[in-house]
Amino acid sequence: MSLKKKPVTGMKDILPAEMQVREYVMNQIRETYGGFGFNSIETPCVEHIENLTSKQGGDNEKLIFKIMKRGEKLNLETAQMENDLVDSGLRYDLTVPLSRYYSNNAAVLPSPFKSLQMGSVWRADRPQRGRFRQFVQCDIDILGDPTRLAEIELILATTTLLGKVGFKGYTVRINDRNILKGMAAHCGFSEESYDQVFIILDKMDKIGMDGVAGELKEAGYPEENIKKYLALFETVTRDAAGVRSLKEVLNDAMDPEQAENLAAIIDSVSEITTSQFKIEFDPTLVRGMSYYTGTIFEILVDGFPGSVGGGGRYDKMIGKFTGIDTPACGFSIGFERIITILMEEGFTVPGSEERIAFLIEKGVSDGVMNEAVKEAMSERAKGKTVLVSQMNKNKKFQKESLQKEGYSQFKEFYKEALKETN
Amino acid sequence: MSLKKKPVTGMKDILPAEMQVREYVMNQIRETYGGFGFNSIETPCVEHIENLTSKQGGDNEKLIFKIMKRGEKLNLETAQMENDLVDSGLRYDLTVPLSRYYSNNAAVLPSPFKSLQMGSVWRADRPQRGRFRQFVQCDIDILGDPTRLAEIELILATTTLLGKVGFKGYTVRINDRNILKGMAAHCGFSEESYDQVFIILDKMDKIGMDGVAGELKEAGYPEENIKKYLALFETVTRDAAGVRSLKEVLNDAMDPEQAENLAAIIDSVSEITTSQFKIEFDPTLVRGMSYYTGTIFEILVDGFPGSVGGGGRYDKMIGKFTGIDTPACGFSIGFERIITILMEEGFTVPGSEERIAFLIEKGVSDGVMNEAVKEAMSERAKGKTVLVSQMNKNKKFQKESLQKEGYSQFKEFYKEALKETN
Repeated sequence: MSLKKKPVTGMKDILPAEMQVREYVMNQIRETYGGFGFNSIETPCVEHIENLTSKQGGDNEKLIFKIMKRGEKLNLETAQMENDLVDSGLRYDLTVPLSRYYSNNAAVLPSPFKSLQMGSVWRADRPQRGRFRQFVQCDIDILGDPTRLAEIELILATTTLLGKVGFKGYTVRINDRNILKGMAAHCGFSEESYDQVFIILDKMDKIGMDGVAGELKEAGYPEENIKKYLALFETVTRDAAGVRSLKEVLNDAMDPEQAENLAAIIDSVSEITTSQFKIEFDPTLVRGMSYYTGTIFEILVDGFPGSVGGGGRYDKMIGKFTGIDTPACGFSIGFERIITILMEEGFTVPGSEERIAFLIEKGVSDGVMNEAVKEAMSERAKGKTVLVSQMNKNKKFQKESLQKEGYSQFKEFYKEALKETN
Repeated sequence: MSLKKKPVTGMKDILPAEMQVREYVMNQIRETYGGFGFNSIETPCVEHIENLTSKQGGDNEKLIFKIMKRGEKLNLETAQMENDLVDSGLRYDLTVPLSRYYSNNAAVLPSPFKSLQMGSVWRADRPQRGRFRQFVQCDIDILGDPTRLAEIELILATTTLLGKVGFKGYTVRINDRNILKGMAAHCGFSEESYDQVFIILDKMDKIGMDGVAGELKEAGYPEENIKKYLALFETVTRDAAGVRSLKEVLNDAMDPEQAENLAAIIDSVSEITTSQFKIEFDPTLVRGMSYYTGTIFEILVDGFPGSVGGGGRYDKMIGKFTGIDTPACGFSIGFERIITILMEEGFTVPGSEERIAFLIEKGVSDGVMNEAVKEAMSERAKGKTVLVSQMNKNKKFQKESLQKEGYSQFKEFYKEALKETN
């Protein structure tokens, strides 16, 4: 027995109970975003190694599953380094493939293009509880729309989805990379220091204002700058009015129109939506990826740590493929996070508990079996789920197991006669 | 611009129109098989290289996309051969992963287990028209049922699916590996020659009886054997009666119960089904994979070359993982083949032609935009698809493109007032 029963390290077999929830959520996603005019697309799981290592993916580029060249192209003897042996890899996100897809197909796609992409991505992360090396991402993006209509539609669609899946309390946090930079500039931080300052700022949730102050000081920034910087965070309110107050303060350091744009997004979303969620301006929101150029946002669900989705505007990435910049704004839904939350809460897929099982004793005649299957076929034609199964020796245990899978009605077929039970 | 716009060789970007058809068919598959009590499962796309190269996959094992080891485990200097550098690969089918999955999870799965697995597989085949290196397979399998109820349910479920997707005329061809062997044995062919004889027999569709006779002769088999063999094929009828006549003839060469089993499957399916399809005994049906141990079958659609699905019983594969044989029978649906046929026939997904588009002139006030989006949200809440989009300069062209995507109703929002058009 040379064969291995366990999945490869860090990846998992998905059992039927979880699959039911996953398929239900995927259908909700397709239906909801479909209703907003998003088009489903698919890109290959395998991507050119050049595209995967083009610095669009940040730290994810260190986690690529690389695919070996094949046939004559593979030359072990002359290979000097790893990359001489590979020509492709598994995608680590859906954003790089989407950008390639749009570049390749823009001529035949609607403009603006509203894209929905669900698919697996792979990262050779250190395996840890609840974190897998293959997982599903779900990205929605609007390409070719430079206006805030894109942000507004993305936020409305995604909050509509969360409502449909059953979430009650959640908050959209929103910021703009230009405000982030404007605040830093206004307080005397140089452009070269932004990356470090923002990494520290990003910890605000965990270490608080004092913690951020401490780390900035430790990193050698002038006390005066730090004081001014943190005072800004302390005074600004977490709403459109807060953004507009910053617009005045930062008029030396950023384009006021960019701040007004963010305030208007918050106003529009608040006015339009009828769902139960908050939208908050969060000046401490950083979002790690370097490709964001404007608005950034994420969604948090009450009572659960971490976000269930996030994204922002990335107007410069498609230009890396085509040479021509294309406005782009997108959301990545934390699909696996949502599934984990639903599974922990014991979520039951609607309609999954009205199943019928026909159990057939071993050795019945073909006549009895045919009658059983005929009856099952006629119930199935009415849309019911009917399992026709051999009756096991331990019938009690078999029925208990089936009950756990949602079978609530049983019919038994015997050699002599047939009995009906519930 | 170092980034590549085209997908990797042999793989493809899937455009929205095809995605609509794919998602529709996938939903029909989930719904139909779900109604028969099949459980959706998922296995990782990446599989242990040992499992992929265990001789279960036939020629597909030559087409594996291999994944390089990572970190310290990768040692270029000491590597003597390709396989020193790899630890895994992309699955080339769903049968090997299913067998591993069942071996790994049998304790928590229902018994018998009815499995539905849809997912991409990868084969580094020579690229050619209509054939891709990443494609979706759809497998349904019943594990743990040694009786013909498995075959009957598989055939009924799959023909039900084909009917739902809109196919009219199709034929299930069925045979048994034991009849195949029995016929060869009865006519004097030795066990060692079976593989070659069956490869030639498999060409009957293309080269006819004379062609098969010629190739067998060329391969050096005695004329007497060939004559006896082909006479059998000529006389046997393509139905349950034909199987039963062979049962008598081959009583020196095979277990009569195995022939009776096949005849009973044909009888039961014919009696139970109300769908419009033929089920035919086809003694020339071979099915290439060496793992089949009993019944084999495939489905052909009138007017289209090649099969849209096939499968059979493989009672010995799971034992390779667990040491204990488990009865198993399955169907692999030709998902890509079905999509190709539907696309060629200009299939339209039901309901996809009642979409509404709101076009918003550039520069409208936030008030006008908010009203438009509010109205869209209220239509969406009723289940309608409403696209809210910037109005392009070439509005006529934009509307024509949208009409092609199924948008049949338009509403336009302008700076001053709003106009409604159709």
